[in-house]
Amino acid sequence: MSVLVVGSVAYDTVVTSAGSREDALGGSATFFSVSCSFFTQVGLVAVVGDDFRKEDVQLLKTRGIDTSGLDQTEGKTFRWSGVYDTEDVNTRTTLDTQLNVFSGFSPKLTIKQRKTPYVFLANIDPDLQMSVLKQVEDKPKLLALDTMNYWISGKNRSLRRVVQEIDVLFIDEAEVRELANEVNLVQAARKIMDSGPSVVVVKRGDHGLLLFHNNSTFVAPAFPLERVIDPTGAGDSFAGGFLGYLASSNDLSPESFRRAAVLGSVMGSFAVESFSLDRLMSVTHSEIEGRFREFSQLSQFMPLDDDETLPWRSYT
Amino acid sequence: MSVLVVGSVAYDTVVTSAGSREDALGGSATFFSVSCSFFTQVGLVAVVGDDFRKEDVQLLKTRGIDTSGLDQTEGKTFRWSGVYDTEDVNTRTTLDTQLNVFSGFSPKLTIKQRKTPYVFLANIDPDLQMSVLKQVEDKPKLLALDTMNYWISGKNRSLRRVVQEIDVLFIDEAEVRELANEVNLVQAARKIMDSGPSVVVVKRGDHGLLLFHNNSTFVAPAFPLERVIDPTGAGDSFAGGFLGYLASSNDLSPESFRRAAVLGSVMGSFAVESFSLDRLMSVTHSEIEGRFREFSQLSQFMPLDDDETLPWRSYT
Repeated sequence: MSVLVVGSVAYDTVVTSAGSREDALGGSATFFSVSCSFFTQVGLVAVVGDDFRKEDVQLLKTRGIDTSGLDQTEGKTFRWSGVYDTEDVNTRTTLDTQLNVFSGFSPKLTIKQRKTPYVFLANIDPDLQMSVLKQVEDKPKLLALDTMNYWISGKNRSLRRVVQEIDVLFIDEAEVRELANEVNLVQAARKIMDSGPSVVVVKRGDHGLLLFHNNSTFVAPAFPLERVIDPTGAGDSFAGGFLGYLASSNDLSPESFRRAAVLGSVMGSFAVESFSLDRLMSVTHSEIEGRFREFSQLSQFMPLDDDETLPWRSYT
Repeated sequence: MSVLVVGSVAYDTVVTSAGSREDALGGSATFFSVSCSFFTQVGLVAVVGDDFRKEDVQLLKTRGIDTSGLDQTEGKTFRWSGVYDTEDVNTRTTLDTQLNVFSGFSPKLTIKQRKTPYVFLANIDPDLQMSVLKQVEDKPKLLALDTMNYWISGKNRSLRRVVQEIDVLFIDEAEVRELANEVNLVQAARKIMDSGPSVVVVKRGDHGLLLFHNNSTFVAPAFPLERVIDPTGAGDSFAGGFLGYLASSNDLSPESFRRAAVLGSVMGSFAVESFSLDRLMSVTHSEIEGRFREFSQLSQFMPLDDDETLPWRSYT
């Protein structure tokens, strides 16, 4: 298996401007692994309760995801519920979080899992992220991590410690400012890179992203969608496409990271077109490739040739 | 003269996270014409009071701007003062607006001005924008307009009427939603284009822009700046670079519009690097060209070749 994800598998109850869904399959590891599975083999480490539906395990298996790390235990599956702002898809309010079996989550990697070359530590307690990191025997080819404001304020020291050990940090715009204690995004990302990661990906929701990779910066808009049904899972689907591309191409050049970011955006843009994983489960290779090509067309403009100048005013 | 701008010339008092400035030269027509003057001849139609400083007229003349339409009249120059959010450069609060001589502004175009091929109706009362439009004899090559939420709510009918007559609408993200009464940006822009304009440029501050041009969409990120000193005038400097490029290249192809948008972003990114017009007055051709090239590098990624596929997972 070439990508390992450690994170949450959950049942989400969401209300968006397009409607609502109750107890729909969700969770960071779920969205990540389904998105990633288009490009490479994925193994998932997570915990669910005895109420976890058989068809949901089946759904993951359909996508060829290795579910041997999905621990089913006594109790209820992690539940999250939230409402999205009708005006701004980037804003949501959490109504309820029931950790349930997730409160006792203590990820244990098998010997095979410890040798996975690409590892994604989804948004969970930084202490758990660190415990996974310690189990990984040799340094993986790429170690990526996602987090959120909850941990930035609640477990700041633990988070900083684990961030020092990773290669790629996925983080929201407001969160990177908070973590670095710096308003300017460019400077905030640089500060974090000084502490360890060689790549910082600043996710800006429907405003695109910034990718800082050593000394190079990549800026990309978001794919402009006519309709957003449910923004849940967009970030994890992005990360899944991103790492899936890198693992599958096995190319860690700056050009490859840029493509990974665009493909991640494409996967995120599909994820939000339906509730839960519906759209990611129906999307085809040709639709993904089509949108990747469309993305290129949408964002391309004629650069200046080497000997070309801008049409300056001529003073006469 | 190839571009005409009708708008405000003002003295701004601003407080930003970088400091403050009192009675600094500003106004929509000012930022627009200075930015535009790099690329083509600009004439300015505006009104100022008898307190307007000689050196500020001189500044416009230094840039080769035709100030014969700058009416100096008894009273005080338009004054605006505001505070920018220290966290979010896209948000500002107006502290005070003193229309002064601007309250009696009734733009009268000379015969020469009526024949200008590119016209920019900066953000002023839509009734004044309509009165300018009626004075323009033949339809100009390109008629562009900027507006703001104040007019969308306060003079909605007048604004809708003038928008029907123009080619290019510059508008903020929240404003396009309000004007079209539609949350989704793509759909909002389409609704407005159905009413007349063939081009809608949605400005998203430091989140870039969306350019809708007939059936084609262009998305561009903003140039990532390490330091923003004063966001005042960014939108008008953007419009100045945009129309300056189109007028100077005299090319209204879709490719040309895309380049115009990128160059507009470049000009806006310089404008915010200092208070007032300081940076626009010091920036050189080579700096502008350098940033245009940097913008291409920052935003480019390898598209898929025609016969290339994404690295799909191989099932074995």
